[in-house]
Amino acid sequence: MPTIVVDVMPKAELLDPQGKAVAGALDRMGVEGFSAVRIGKRFELTVADASEETLAVARKLADEVLSNSVIEDVVGIEVVE
Amino acid sequence: MPTIVVDVMPKAELLDPQGKAVAGALDRMGVEGFSAVRIGKRFELTVADASEETLAVARKLADEVLSNSVIEDVVGIEVVE
Repeated sequence: MPTIVVDVMPKAELLDPQGKAVAGALDRMGVEGFSAVRIGKRFELTVADASEETLAVARKLADEVLSNSVIEDVVGIEVVE
Repeated sequence: MPTIVVDVMPKAELLDPQGKAVAGALDRMGVEGFSAVRIGKRFELTVADASEETLAVARKLADEVLSNSVIEDVVGIEVVE
């Protein structure tokens, strides 16, 4: 069955404490070349068919259910498989 | 600056209570055609350069730091921008 992948990230202007914690950990581990880390969510929605209609529903759900538009942005919606 | 995106998902054989909760919510909302939802993480790592070397370090970090191999799989690593 096809899968619709929805990517949600914290808005750029917001602090991302989880990401900051990971960036700090990399720093303490001595890993170089990684200047920032941000952590968001990846939703995999298994759908019966990947029609244009289903995709439209998925777009609506991504904006209204899967993300909180006050603090998050939907950065990608794509069909895989 | 280039960004390396790392996608981490809960292993297929594990229950994903967060995903199940969302799937249940969609069901109660009367949304049809979505049979399953799984929720994972999307890491955006800002790097100084997207060389093969940096990518190798990112792959190692993805396996050892960003994911817990007991319960999660790294499903994708790609350079964007």
